[in-house]
Amino acid sequence: MIKESIEFQVEFYDVDSMQVAWHGNYVKYMEVARCALLRKIGYDYNEMTRSGYVWPVVDIHVKYLRPMIFLQKVRCEVTLQEYEICLKLSYKFTDAETGKVLTRAESTQMAVDIKTRESQVGSPLCFIEKVRECEARENA
Amino acid sequence: MIKESIEFQVEFYDVDSMQVAWHGNYVKYMEVARCALLRKIGYDYNEMTRSGYVWPVVDIHVKYLRPMIFLQKVRCEVTLQEYEICLKLSYKFTDAETGKVLTRAESTQMAVDIKTRESQVGSPLCFIEKVRECEARENA
Amino acid sequence: MIKESIEFQVEFYDVDSMQVAWHGNYVKYMEVARCALLRKIGYDYNEMTRSGYVWPVVDIHVKYLRPMIFLQKVRCEVTLQEYEICLKLSYKFTDAETGKVLTRAESTQMAVDIKTRESQVGSPLCFIEKVRECEARENA
Amino acid sequence: MIKESIEFQVEFYDVDSMQVAWHGNYVKYMEVARCALLRKIGYDYNEMTRSGYVWPVVDIHVKYLRPMIFLQKVRCEVTLQEYEICLKLSYKFTDAETGKVLTRAESTQMAVDIKTRESQVGSPLCFIEKVRECEARENA
Repeated sequence: MIKESIEFQVEFYDVDSMQVAWHGNYVKYMEVARCALLRKIGYDYNEMTRSGYVWPVVDIHVKYLRPMIFLQKVRCEVTLQEYEICLKLSYKFTDAETGKVLTRAESTQMAVDIKTRESQVGSPLCFIEKVRECEARENA
Repeated sequence: MIKESIEFQVEFYDVDSMQVAWHGNYVKYMEVARCALLRKIGYDYNEMTRSGYVWPVVDIHVKYLRPMIFLQKVRCEVTLQEYEICLKLSYKFTDAETGKVLTRAESTQMAVDIKTRESQVGSPLCFIEKVRECEARENA
Repeated sequence: MIKESIEFQVEFYDVDSMQVAWHGNYVKYMEVARCALLRKIGYDYNEMTRSGYVWPVVDIHVKYLRPMIFLQKVRCEVTLQEYEICLKLSYKFTDAETGKVLTRAESTQMAVDIKTRESQVGSPLCFIEKVRECEARENA
Repeated sequence: MIKESIEFQVEFYDVDSMQVAWHGNYVKYMEVARCALLRKIGYDYNEMTRSGYVWPVVDIHVKYLRPMIFLQKVRCEVTLQEYEICLKLSYKFTDAETGKVLTRAESTQMAVDIKTRESQVGSPLCFIEKVRECEARENA
């Protein structure tokens, strides 16, 4: 299982009038974590484009368990759940100091051929290979 | 079934480098639609506070079917799905001109007592009454 | 003097923990007003692209006089100040009901040739003509 | 002269359809840099509140010299320019690798007494003392 994690601090501009991170902003944190995971796999945004595909997000699901407050240090761990049919990731937000779970989330992306604009039924081989190489490195 | 809808235009600042509305911005559109529905029920943000509760979002789920592009006129219809245990709403984004469905979403909120900070197992009576009065008005 | 104005309501997601619209969000409101003015001139984003230019913002200046609060209805009036050398606009935010001035701002944009990527010393003729036609319509 | 700097990477969600960081997002980067400077002075958000003041931004000015692109690593250096009458900071954005200047900006904040809601003609003594202590530490 390929994992990656980022740490961030809740900034003032992300806090709402209830003094907690506005729930919509979590999608940004998820994106930063997702980019980190894809970088680890060797399939970052530039590599995606080179491979001839874009990967729009087709589904997100976020379960907010505990609020995050201004200046709180938060860890977001992202785990690759599925990559052969689509790219499905799960996210776990925890307090960076106590480890308490704050939020769980999932995102799903589908490959779309840049030239034909067609959604792909399965993931492109170039991506599948990169994932397997990464798994091999992780298990080494 | 209580419904409400809003119309909006995709602004430049909401569009990403793929020339479509960035997927995280849909949570903002959902919030505007939700506020409109709660206003219709007579339970807007100020009334919530007066009633002694805040209603944090505990779950969102968005399924992106078709992208929205810069300057596209979009309708977001929100429907009350459940209000006795929690506040559950469904959202349908359609092209305002063609009616084509673009995105479907759901959000769930739970009442939290402002004084005790405790989540409520069921919705407060004051809210349930407002929903029933609104339903009666709609059916009249 | 060509003017245009928009009205908007301060949404929950734009409010910060001080219970006022976060100061950085004003740049979004300015963009909506600017798009409305350019539409009036007949030089919206699509027309810009067709004319072979993009118009990046090179300068913004915002003076916050009074805060804007959640659900406040606000009017933003935008006025064309200069168009021959660059595109300079001024903005006046007022309470939509009382007319009280809340914020004043300015933005400056320069034409950049899409093909050569070069900034233009003066505005393209096609834009200057559109402004003059709009002025003529306004004065008619 | 008290200075502080942060480094950040331009994220996907901050990039617009012109493939550059949307100009309004710079205000967020400025806020992160400003918070870092105030932390250095020992006058972060919590200390502000304890001292009985909030410091709303009353003026921002941004001059965009060169665009910032997706994944670009950027340094934002913030310098204290004035602190006795108001809190005035200047910002210099540079490419983190080449040092090329990308953007210059300024922000001004005024102390407001939390209880009376009145703007202060000069900065509160507690803040002035903290700045002088920080200057002494920097010069030591």
